[in-house]
Amino acid sequence: MDGYNRDVDLKPMDAEQFREHAHKMVDFIADYYKTIENFPVLSQVQPGYLRNMLPDSAPNHPESLDDIFNDVQAKILPGVTHWQSPNYFAYYPSNSSIAGFLGEMLSAGLNIVGFSWITSPAATELEMIVLDWLAKLLKLPDEFLSAGQGGGVIQGTASEAVLVVLLAARDKVLRRLSKNALEKIVVYASDQTHSAVQKACQVLTNYPNLWLLLPNSFVSSLWNLCICQCFNANSFLSRLSLLSVRSLTYDSRNPSGELQVGTTSSTAVDPLLALGKIAKSNGMWFHVDAAYAGSACICPEYRQYIDGVEEADSFNMNAHKWFLTNFDCSALWVKDRTALVQSLSTNPEFLKNKASQANMVVDYKDWQIPLGRRFRSLKLWMVLRLYGIENLQCYIRNHIKLAEHFEGLVAQDPRFEVVTPRIFSLVCFRLLPPRNNEDNDKKLNNDLLEAINSTGKIFISHTVLSGKYILRFAIGAPLTEERHVTAAWKVLQDEASVLLGRL
Amino acid sequence: MDGYNRDVDLKPMDAEQFREHAHKMVDFIADYYKTIENFPVLSQVQPGYLRNMLPDSAPNHPESLDDIFNDVQAKILPGVTHWQSPNYFAYYPSNSSIAGFLGEMLSAGLNIVGFSWITSPAATELEMIVLDWLAKLLKLPDEFLSAGQGGGVIQGTASEAVLVVLLAARDKVLRRLSKNALEKIVVYASDQTHSAVQKACQVLTNYPNLWLLLPNSFVSSLWNLCICQCFNANSFLSRLSLLSVRSLTYDSRNPSGELQVGTTSSTAVDPLLALGKIAKSNGMWFHVDAAYAGSACICPEYRQYIDGVEEADSFNMNAHKWFLTNFDCSALWVKDRTALVQSLSTNPEFLKNKASQANMVVDYKDWQIPLGRRFRSLKLWMVLRLYGIENLQCYIRNHIKLAEHFEGLVAQDPRFEVVTPRIFSLVCFRLLPPRNNEDNDKKLNNDLLEAINSTGKIFISHTVLSGKYILRFAIGAPLTEERHVTAAWKVLQDEASVLLGRL
Repeated sequence: MDGYNRDVDLKPMDAEQFREHAHKMVDFIADYYKTIENFPVLSQVQPGYLRNMLPDSAPNHPESLDDIFNDVQAKILPGVTHWQSPNYFAYYPSNSSIAGFLGEMLSAGLNIVGFSWITSPAATELEMIVLDWLAKLLKLPDEFLSAGQGGGVIQGTASEAVLVVLLAARDKVLRRLSKNALEKIVVYASDQTHSAVQKACQVLTNYPNLWLLLPNSFVSSLWNLCICQCFNANSFLSRLSLLSVRSLTYDSRNPSGELQVGTTSSTAVDPLLALGKIAKSNGMWFHVDAAYAGSACICPEYRQYIDGVEEADSFNMNAHKWFLTNFDCSALWVKDRTALVQSLSTNPEFLKNKASQANMVVDYKDWQIPLGRRFRSLKLWMVLRLYGIENLQCYIRNHIKLAEHFEGLVAQDPRFEVVTPRIFSLVCFRLLPPRNNEDNDKKLNNDLLEAINSTGKIFISHTVLSGKYILRFAIGAPLTEERHVTAAWKVLQDEASVLLGRL
Repeated sequence: MDGYNRDVDLKPMDAEQFREHAHKMVDFIADYYKTIENFPVLSQVQPGYLRNMLPDSAPNHPESLDDIFNDVQAKILPGVTHWQSPNYFAYYPSNSSIAGFLGEMLSAGLNIVGFSWITSPAATELEMIVLDWLAKLLKLPDEFLSAGQGGGVIQGTASEAVLVVLLAARDKVLRRLSKNALEKIVVYASDQTHSAVQKACQVLTNYPNLWLLLPNSFVSSLWNLCICQCFNANSFLSRLSLLSVRSLTYDSRNPSGELQVGTTSSTAVDPLLALGKIAKSNGMWFHVDAAYAGSACICPEYRQYIDGVEEADSFNMNAHKWFLTNFDCSALWVKDRTALVQSLSTNPEFLKNKASQANMVVDYKDWQIPLGRRFRSLKLWMVLRLYGIENLQCYIRNHIKLAEHFEGLVAQDPRFEVVTPRIFSLVCFRLLPPRNNEDNDKKLNNDLLEAINSTGKIFISHTVLSGKYILRFAIGAPLTEERHVTAAWKVLQDEASVLLGRL
């Protein structure tokens, strides 16, 4: 037996070549950050732009790293929308940070697949410990800690988090009733809930009408699941929570006009608690999704917005949005981990091992859809340690102050209105149509959006609230400073002037 | 308005600090690779080991990077099972490579969230292009290319791939029949299929009996879905495929004894084709999972094992297993992308944009469970370019030759037997029980497994085939050379001698 290495020039893991190439990549990325403001924030390429710039097939022979860097610069970066730009204000932020990046590097370097405890005990145990840390920081009830019957787990996204809790909730109900009771299950969610809930219902039930949009949809006579989405889309949360409460408490089949309760930021607390109590008294699963704003709740002054989480069966926040942890890192806590495991466990022979069979360990494969999983707790651990709680609180407060600043700028310009009260770092606003042109408001704001984003100077997104087309200005990129917010407002004002001048 | 930066010492994205810290991490990881053979391959820690080594809560103030490196060295690495060790032979490999790592770095550096085309056109377009490259390399039928009605997408894992295709298949059937027909749907899969299929059925249907394990389970009168798992668990594939074919063709409700067809590596081709024809003629969805061995099919001499993929509706291989692309990167191709999109799309206002609304682009959010997604095509692109096709083929061939070498060593020792014919780089074998002790074979091999893995010198895993407890020796770590395989065999022989001596 000889010669099987003879033809192999490839040293895909040579430590010294690794060192040399990875150092080059570090410099490439550092230089990217230094020059990030030179790029249009929203990529300005046309659909299909890349196809003609690249060959039709993979090369037979190796190409150099320099060639690849050149291609990244010339062909890839023009097609990138720069989420890390300080002028990125669209959707929600997707935080990168040095600590988060270092965690990603280490995770990719170890490249373990931590489906079971035994496949890297540190991956499972660090995840349990760090999610306990984060739960304590958020002052979540003790039942969410791993010491009891509950615990935390890192999912890829809030979509996966809501899918697995809905699945656990579904199966819990079906075990109680019968497996044929699927069509009797109702999911309650506000009409502003994230599309992830709709998707989860599509996946889990194939009955799209199980996704109940209050107050517009029917309510079944059987209440089993309750999804309460809060803080995720906008500051409409209190109204939505109240809607849910009222439609549940009063007459859910005939939601009346009185359900139109106005929004105030301060009423956001009670509904969560009230909803939770209703859910509990009706044997529902109560899930609270704070994917975006959960991060703010590490500050004592914002913690009130999840008062009532004590009633929740599960809680979710995305550390990859506004908590400096590179995507993906969606933290999910449950009070009853058995419910997840009952729905998601499989026990094939090839994965059996002593520690799992003896029930001595957590095997996170049974808490999630995928089997394999990365060592994602490293990056969250590094963020918490390299920055520390106080700095992280300052980081959140700074963005919220910047949003306050932006809100103030909008309020000073009578051509604009702030549409919903700002609670966190998202400002919802719009350009008011001129008096003689009021039906034009959607087009006007859509035109403004397109014009703004076409400049490449900033990137913002939109939504529709109560039939109004609204512009969203979400602050949260780590590089954003006051000067960027002020400059962004200037861009908005200038483009508005151009548009209004044309009317 | 002033002062909101005053309290913020935190510069989480300072380019120069990024450079300095990330260079340190590169050196840390390079040094890890250099010394990787010093660690026990399978972590030898006890459950709960980490809890007492770390504080109860996150620190209030920042800690230094050096402190973190010290903790990684002293507390994390002892709890790591070293999948990148050249002495790792368990489960299947999880390849890291310089190219894959560089791709992970760049992806983490850009940290975009590519749910829609507009959120980074390059992320969507590079993924389409690179999956076309890989499809061509695997000689997949043209219908899987993005130019037509099909296309490729990167899923996190094969579990997610099989879930989304089962979902698409389920909904396709239900659209044709009625949404209440759920309990009539049958999923056909071999009894050696991966647990991911069971999990997908649990998620999608809540009828575990929809998971059909031939030849032991019932067959509904309605055939709608056909999952054909090949190459994933072991070389039993041909038998399994034949089982499926026969039970479908003959009498599916009464699989008879004649279904026990023996295995040969060369008969693996026809069943896939035959199965596909049966699936097609019965209106089934036909999915081929080649998560592990798909990589081998880039070599012309191994491509035969997916002959018949022409009949498939979907095909999956994991580039993160044996194709030098860091976890996670599971490539899925479908012939009819509309089927996926119909089941997985949502169209919330806040994600609407011109390009998507005009149907000019692919929005991968509608091809997967999560909304957000990383720029994973970068690493696959870098692997293909930095190594080139010929080197990648050599890489695969080298591992297969090493497995042949190991198989030869086992065959030369009469105390052992090779249980199934080896096709790729996995050898299934066992220690034969002494004549007077034949009932002891499971315990003997389990004891051998535990003894071997406790040495920390190598890590292997096991399975059960036809009631026999089997040891699995899977070659595929990038650092593995002949000397490691030879040494591993020596460890096995020595431990076997000790065990047999005790009997």
